[in-house]
Amino acid sequence: MKIAIDAMGGDMGPKVTVTGAVDAAREYGFSICLVGQKDLLTSELSKHDTSGLDLVIEDASQTVTMDDLPLVAVRQKKDSSIRIAAELVKSGEADGMVSAGNTGAVMATAKIFFGALEGVDRPAIATVLPTIKGMSLLLDVGANVDCKPMHLLQFAIMGHAYAQQVLHIPKPTVGILSIGSEESKGNELSRMALSLIRQTPFNIVGNVEGRDIFRGLVDVAVADGFVGNVALKIAEGVEEMITSLIKREIRKSIMGRLGFWFMIPAFKNLKKSIDYAEYGGAPLLGLNKVCIICHGISEAKAIKNAARVAAEFITKKVNTQIKEDISAIRQMIEKKKISAVESC
Amino acid sequence: MKIAIDAMGGDMGPKVTVTGAVDAAREYGFSICLVGQKDLLTSELSKHDTSGLDLVIEDASQTVTMDDLPLVAVRQKKDSSIRIAAELVKSGEADGMVSAGNTGAVMATAKIFFGALEGVDRPAIATVLPTIKGMSLLLDVGANVDCKPMHLLQFAIMGHAYAQQVLHIPKPTVGILSIGSEESKGNELSRMALSLIRQTPFNIVGNVEGRDIFRGLVDVAVADGFVGNVALKIAEGVEEMITSLIKREIRKSIMGRLGFWFMIPAFKNLKKSIDYAEYGGAPLLGLNKVCIICHGISEAKAIKNAARVAAEFITKKVNTQIKEDISAIRQMIEKKKISAVESC
Repeated sequence: MKIAIDAMGGDMGPKVTVTGAVDAAREYGFSICLVGQKDLLTSELSKHDTSGLDLVIEDASQTVTMDDLPLVAVRQKKDSSIRIAAELVKSGEADGMVSAGNTGAVMATAKIFFGALEGVDRPAIATVLPTIKGMSLLLDVGANVDCKPMHLLQFAIMGHAYAQQVLHIPKPTVGILSIGSEESKGNELSRMALSLIRQTPFNIVGNVEGRDIFRGLVDVAVADGFVGNVALKIAEGVEEMITSLIKREIRKSIMGRLGFWFMIPAFKNLKKSIDYAEYGGAPLLGLNKVCIICHGISEAKAIKNAARVAAEFITKKVNTQIKEDISAIRQMIEKKKISAVESC
Repeated sequence: MKIAIDAMGGDMGPKVTVTGAVDAAREYGFSICLVGQKDLLTSELSKHDTSGLDLVIEDASQTVTMDDLPLVAVRQKKDSSIRIAAELVKSGEADGMVSAGNTGAVMATAKIFFGALEGVDRPAIATVLPTIKGMSLLLDVGANVDCKPMHLLQFAIMGHAYAQQVLHIPKPTVGILSIGSEESKGNELSRMALSLIRQTPFNIVGNVEGRDIFRGLVDVAVADGFVGNVALKIAEGVEEMITSLIKREIRKSIMGRLGFWFMIPAFKNLKKSIDYAEYGGAPLLGLNKVCIICHGISEAKAIKNAARVAAEFITKKVNTQIKEDISAIRQMIEKKKISAVESC
């Protein structure tokens, strides 16, 4: 198993990505190819004990910044770490890639280099959200802003396969992110998508709302990329606000600081429960190859977990399952077992 | 100032609404008309000292439940507390109404009885969200699921007037809820809406994301009712999850319980910062009369604050400002000072 890691990605750069890569090589025995500026990575790698580990460096002279426009980055930075990592995967030298770089640029590069899986109209970005029971998958969170019902059906199929194979949920439940549980609730797109996925053999719970997701009442929640991304960023915003308000209150008084001291283990567990780093990044679903995107603020643990997730994505043959499921659904539509209206 | 309060609304019914009404009458000197089952309300009212307060009961034999379909409730429950309260406002016997009942039914009743303000195509529901700096207004949060850019422009105008007059923000900033700050980010609707509101004289910050709202970087965030409602329920879901996980951690150990004991004042302040009850409910904007909807789980304080907000809505002439601003914008469009594309 060889994973290419974009070592220049992320807000903290090689310091964090190299540590994550070394940890992944040691813990899981993966071959890791670190992609980025050779001198910088050699120097960073020399700080670690890498004896017995299968770690190589692939030089890439350019770095995509968070401000670069995705398509400009792909076209103009031909020697960027994102692009070189994608080339390694495309040529088969690596089995999958991980990047904590500019999400738009990684997505655009992966789409261009890997192409969509047979039968998939719109590849999507999925993200794992913490819930009080464990975790749920939400997709699409930003790859496709204006969608048709058929796209949401494909997101459901892809999310279902990923939840089954990588999140280890034997029979994942699937819902449409909406604004009320009744079938009549929602906008035109969500209602049409629900009536479509209702006809599939998946375990459909119907419409779900924000509370249902965080209460752990659905395993896979599906939305167009605009709604999904708004939802994700609202969730991050609320979490950030509450954390910030708790900190402010703790600092305000001696009682607060004392109480916090006793509660450190509790807060640590809480942080762990809702920590993105535990979940190993956001998979791009519906591509011919495997690419996991990590949050820009990823720590080494997130990079390590993303490498593990990429490996599982590959060994569990998620893409094969997606292709088969999409083909099966297409056949049901052709045989009129699923009635898809024209605008779907 | 006479406020009609739907005393049967809310998960906890008259016990809570009557207390809130008595508090509002005492604290603000309002005349309050409690609408609902007379016997029940008389008995509930007798538990309070109401000497010197202007409180009357208006009998309404029926109650709309949370499960009633909005239009069915309006048409079939002709003697419901929601409908009678709306009739009192329509006839001028009361100046405004407050209800913690079935949101859809209150909205439908208010739309039918009061009608849209001159120039307003789509009345909207606004909600106040807590931020680390204070509060922001988000609208629409559910009245209109499929919108055109011109509707979002009207939401911006209505939210701006409300934020200025009732939230006391002299020059509110306005943004479009989207998925990135760049003008090019968003879906077709949000991008067209942004290019439209950019041409108005309001203080436009552009696209805003969840984090921007909760960091307090925008006063009024505008979205279609589907996106706004998804956002609101995601925010509630995250808050509920974090609260529930903190409680679980506290219960787990003696250290946690001890720490919590010291931190009670801090947690109380935190709860106050993010407590919906402090903000006095969600106004319906764009109607000829004033109606404030409270959360189903409202406590007495939320009802009292909603009555205060309704009164301020009336005395500050928010509806007059909305009418004038919409008329001014319409004139700008007619004079081609704002270029609205046809599909707007």
